[in-house]
Amino acid sequence: MKVGIIGATGYGGLELIRLLHSHQEVQTIQLFTSSEEGVSLSTKYPHLTKLYDAPLEKITKQAIEQLSIVFLGTPSGVSGQLIPNIYNENTIFIDLSGDLRLKNSADYEKWYGKKTAPEDLLAKSVYGLCSWNNDAIRSAKLIANPGCYPTAVLLSLLPLLKTNLISHEGLIIDAKSGVSGSGNKPSQLTHYAETTDATTVYKINKHQHIPEIEQAIKSCTGTVEPITFTTHLVPMVRGIITTSYAKLSPGVTAADLHKAFTDTYSDDPFIRFMPDVATLSTKQVKGTNFCDITFNVDDRTNRVTIVAVIDNLVKGAAGQAIQNMNLIMGFNEKAGLQAVPLFI
Amino acid sequence: MKVGIIGATGYGGLELIRLLHSHQEVQTIQLFTSSEEGVSLSTKYPHLTKLYDAPLEKITKQAIEQLSIVFLGTPSGVSGQLIPNIYNENTIFIDLSGDLRLKNSADYEKWYGKKTAPEDLLAKSVYGLCSWNNDAIRSAKLIANPGCYPTAVLLSLLPLLKTNLISHEGLIIDAKSGVSGSGNKPSQLTHYAETTDATTVYKINKHQHIPEIEQAIKSCTGTVEPITFTTHLVPMVRGIITTSYAKLSPGVTAADLHKAFTDTYSDDPFIRFMPDVATLSTKQVKGTNFCDITFNVDDRTNRVTIVAVIDNLVKGAAGQAIQNMNLIMGFNEKAGLQAVPLFI
Amino acid sequence: MKVGIIGATGYGGLELIRLLHSHQEVQTIQLFTSSEEGVSLSTKYPHLTKLYDAPLEKITKQAIEQLSIVFLGTPSGVSGQLIPNIYNENTIFIDLSGDLRLKNSADYEKWYGKKTAPEDLLAKSVYGLCSWNNDAIRSAKLIANPGCYPTAVLLSLLPLLKTNLISHEGLIIDAKSGVSGSGNKPSQLTHYAETTDATTVYKINKHQHIPEIEQAIKSCTGTVEPITFTTHLVPMVRGIITTSYAKLSPGVTAADLHKAFTDTYSDDPFIRFMPDVATLSTKQVKGTNFCDITFNVDDRTNRVTIVAVIDNLVKGAAGQAIQNMNLIMGFNEKAGLQAVPLFI
Amino acid sequence: MKVGIIGATGYGGLELIRLLHSHQEVQTIQLFTSSEEGVSLSTKYPHLTKLYDAPLEKITKQAIEQLSIVFLGTPSGVSGQLIPNIYNENTIFIDLSGDLRLKNSADYEKWYGKKTAPEDLLAKSVYGLCSWNNDAIRSAKLIANPGCYPTAVLLSLLPLLKTNLISHEGLIIDAKSGVSGSGNKPSQLTHYAETTDATTVYKINKHQHIPEIEQAIKSCTGTVEPITFTTHLVPMVRGIITTSYAKLSPGVTAADLHKAFTDTYSDDPFIRFMPDVATLSTKQVKGTNFCDITFNVDDRTNRVTIVAVIDNLVKGAAGQAIQNMNLIMGFNEKAGLQAVPLFI
Repeated sequence: MKVGIIGATGYGGLELIRLLHSHQEVQTIQLFTSSEEGVSLSTKYPHLTKLYDAPLEKITKQAIEQLSIVFLGTPSGVSGQLIPNIYNENTIFIDLSGDLRLKNSADYEKWYGKKTAPEDLLAKSVYGLCSWNNDAIRSAKLIANPGCYPTAVLLSLLPLLKTNLISHEGLIIDAKSGVSGSGNKPSQLTHYAETTDATTVYKINKHQHIPEIEQAIKSCTGTVEPITFTTHLVPMVRGIITTSYAKLSPGVTAADLHKAFTDTYSDDPFIRFMPDVATLSTKQVKGTNFCDITFNVDDRTNRVTIVAVIDNLVKGAAGQAIQNMNLIMGFNEKAGLQAVPLFI
Repeated sequence: MKVGIIGATGYGGLELIRLLHSHQEVQTIQLFTSSEEGVSLSTKYPHLTKLYDAPLEKITKQAIEQLSIVFLGTPSGVSGQLIPNIYNENTIFIDLSGDLRLKNSADYEKWYGKKTAPEDLLAKSVYGLCSWNNDAIRSAKLIANPGCYPTAVLLSLLPLLKTNLISHEGLIIDAKSGVSGSGNKPSQLTHYAETTDATTVYKINKHQHIPEIEQAIKSCTGTVEPITFTTHLVPMVRGIITTSYAKLSPGVTAADLHKAFTDTYSDDPFIRFMPDVATLSTKQVKGTNFCDITFNVDDRTNRVTIVAVIDNLVKGAAGQAIQNMNLIMGFNEKAGLQAVPLFI
Repeated sequence: MKVGIIGATGYGGLELIRLLHSHQEVQTIQLFTSSEEGVSLSTKYPHLTKLYDAPLEKITKQAIEQLSIVFLGTPSGVSGQLIPNIYNENTIFIDLSGDLRLKNSADYEKWYGKKTAPEDLLAKSVYGLCSWNNDAIRSAKLIANPGCYPTAVLLSLLPLLKTNLISHEGLIIDAKSGVSGSGNKPSQLTHYAETTDATTVYKINKHQHIPEIEQAIKSCTGTVEPITFTTHLVPMVRGIITTSYAKLSPGVTAADLHKAFTDTYSDDPFIRFMPDVATLSTKQVKGTNFCDITFNVDDRTNRVTIVAVIDNLVKGAAGQAIQNMNLIMGFNEKAGLQAVPLFI
Repeated sequence: MKVGIIGATGYGGLELIRLLHSHQEVQTIQLFTSSEEGVSLSTKYPHLTKLYDAPLEKITKQAIEQLSIVFLGTPSGVSGQLIPNIYNENTIFIDLSGDLRLKNSADYEKWYGKKTAPEDLLAKSVYGLCSWNNDAIRSAKLIANPGCYPTAVLLSLLPLLKTNLISHEGLIIDAKSGVSGSGNKPSQLTHYAETTDATTVYKINKHQHIPEIEQAIKSCTGTVEPITFTTHLVPMVRGIITTSYAKLSPGVTAADLHKAFTDTYSDDPFIRFMPDVATLSTKQVKGTNFCDITFNVDDRTNRVTIVAVIDNLVKGAAGQAIQNMNLIMGFNEKAGLQAVPLFI
């Protein structure tokens, strides 16, 4: 099987290469670029020496048609305009950017501040939230791969929202991310001397993942209330930890929540529910497609605190994209995604 | 003026030394230890070579009586038992541990899991929350210096709670701390290879600073509801960032909150209210006694997000302790605390 | 094939598990411990949940005899005493500690300050420096897996020493290591607040890898002079970078050195010679068995600077151990070791 | 006294502000910029809020003439061209860049690849290496403040070179620096995700500090041989550690070296000679003007390893610049430089 990556020089692209490299069903990986045609990826990234020395290829409809799968790791605003030019019936498209996630194009333009993708493309795209949308994913031709924050938030809240164990009203989500989420382009916010040894809050109530989370809650549970969502930058490369706060529905106990999680995830290949742990760390999923979840009920307040950790580049991007590919192609869902976490 | 430090070998003690070293009113700093008598501090900490080479002294009532001020930087469970043996009328006692903060001794034993200090000591102690308790502080003989988390939380929430601009009910506080808060004793949780490049949640709904925050809210505003409080460990040495979520009272606007903050803090020597900033970082207060605060109102949810940053070792410990000393002794409140933040 | 790991709870053991987990020839991994029998590894290390939940096993000769290969990831001083009790003809032993590396037992006792392994065990052991000792390795029953520093130093210097392009006299080696090399036991030297954001020099002229390097130079080139060797601790988890300085032999040019490296390594599966690079970073080999090497000749001084980078836990420990296993068992030398470096 | 800083927005400028802020002889600090006139420094750097809110000033000869001292924290290539336009007899100029350090203008153009400063300016400038050039410094009008690497190297080697205890021939210097040395301008080399958790070698035999070190050795000892000098980037913000290797002169012992260091530095306000230490860390001088030095003699090789640590932004830049000011103005040499190291 031949797969392609458009936007191979970004961190999403690099992570796709890293994971696909050891995927047994993938024979060839072709790397495409819009701006650095002819450059060898290993010149730009010496860690790929002897592994990916071939020059990056130009994006053409002809080249893309030869592929079974193409992944797009481009910045927001690109794939929505590019896909119409290269779309074809032979190829499955998996878009890692936010361009195709929001069904309401006005939401995209409001939260992203950019021109939306064409409506017919939005209509065709399937939201690739694995474990929750697998039936639609299996027959999709065009996947909108979920955002990093939404993945952690949704996987940890949907089991409780769907069963009405917690209130839709008053959801508070406090999210912390590693710096790789900002991509490979240097800026003051990612300048080592100013980023290290510090935690920064940013985009309070303004993050473009807010409408994505709300849309998915609505889609999976039938109802939604506006959420409160804050994002922080933490001095680590990989990892997201989301701490969510919800009101318990009347009469609900910790045992009910426990059952909802195990009912939903006990057979899941990548979601590990971890009740009664003293700590939960982004380290324990590093480099893998795992999402680890725990919760604690506070009898003093009748609220529950739910915590999830993922690797933003894997489960929050390239890993879930490959899981989507596996579902679509009928491969083992874990193919290429069986690494042990890089705890140290 | 002669001051003493008991527990000089801990991080609180080290930070007291660092700050008192450049305090113009302090002539002599005497260093005491219960366990390492005779050892030179610079042997243990080479950065103090040529600065603090003298042997650590034994704690005796006679030695303490010679001091104007004694700071206690001991672990919880120590000062509550030690102070009765060395208490005297000549000396001001400033305790940086949690032993004297909770007026209700049952709360201490529940949340700390240790034997409480004697009731008469608890009765005598004054909660040293600068900017909010200055009158009581000025005439105190025994200060319970606030905890690191409570300092950031209270300074950022009290202006809004006291004026009833936000609801007491449903307060959610999501706190993140650097690793220095865990002290100088090695453990798996602070082992470099396992701590770096990761964020960890710990003590969900179980942190001993919960009753301290609630007691202070009650004391300053007359009323309190149980709070929800979660703590995270972030791979940085210094710094706390607290992100708090509250419901706006009916009819309240962002302008009202803005006014409450400026009314409260426009003349404060250390609290910097920073409206309308894109980001807020623990870097911007590093090494100093500043507490920086911002907020954002979300019209979609009618909730406000309030963020505060402090250096946990300064404003959250040694710096506030020295500010307490300055208030009691009638010094310039900023004496010894005028450093520029160590942004890089 | 069944393999076992003794000392599974250390970082060497964890890394063996991580790498063997995706080795296609390995069906079963049994985990042994001398001190934590019955404990589940995933209780101690939550990142292994659902992966290694079985209780750790007791070390017995009977259990070891069932294995094709056993790896020992124990601290120095253990395997030299343990192996005689479990040695058998069915099993290949690969020891990651320093116990069996020094043929001269007096050297071991001098540099390690511990009791040496029995002489017959030392006589039987083969030094597992892949690329340089492959013939002996292929027929070995007992491997002394090289130390982390020696691996980087030897792979980068032997091509030049063996061809007499540089002088044996006056070799200076300045080495820098990440913190994982210190293992999983907390101490002041690895305490996050004191380790991060700083570089420390330690064991100047005293490191136990000095006699190992000298012995291997003698063994591979026929001659040796005392080396100068210094070690530094850098705030990173994985990685070693060694910077070596040598005098060029009369008349030798950069082109000669270039040829020696390509002659030696152009077909090597894991050693990447990188001439003319502006920088070389430990990042570019992270998580992999690669060793990247570059050099620069200074015409002003007629000296050459040779730099090598490895991941100390992989090429410097578990990865090379598996490479040894592959050679002994006749597997593809790259089996289980084909990951792309975790650059970010 | 009024002092000015040109290039206040760079890290050298920020550090000058931080240190001068608590200098008792400095009443006013004026901040100048060539490119961001009218901007408030606290807008760019929020940590300076309420401290440096005034707009940055335009550089004019008239404004500079009003100052007792002006510091230039500009990038290389700027001050050499700028100073001739603003030079005047009322003001002392202290240049932190490399523009005025090399007396031989051809060296500057070769190693910096830029146009040299005018010859008369080079002739007038005094190399501000405190402890070694104090007499000339005291009567200087124009100081070329030493580079960060040269400061650590020279302070640790000159006592032994000047007394001929070590050979001039064959000096090897292996240097490691924190990232702040690269300044405040974002680039791939300082991009957090690529810089953290890794060590990188750069500019092997090509660093522009090589001719500066050689010139100073010649100037202080009367002779010099070409040195070998390598630089590494370590994931820390502040700090340089230099590890130097030299041949002992015939008959020289460790005691001789010990005596040379104590003879030279026992009364020095900032240089701490630390014999017989197990480790030496950049942490122990962080934020201060200290330079800590140790050494170890290896009887096996008759070579000595000499290690020095400094804070590159203080002793290696702004701190030494202020020490130069103190010497010129006749202030206490330690004024403004008495902080305790920020070990944690």
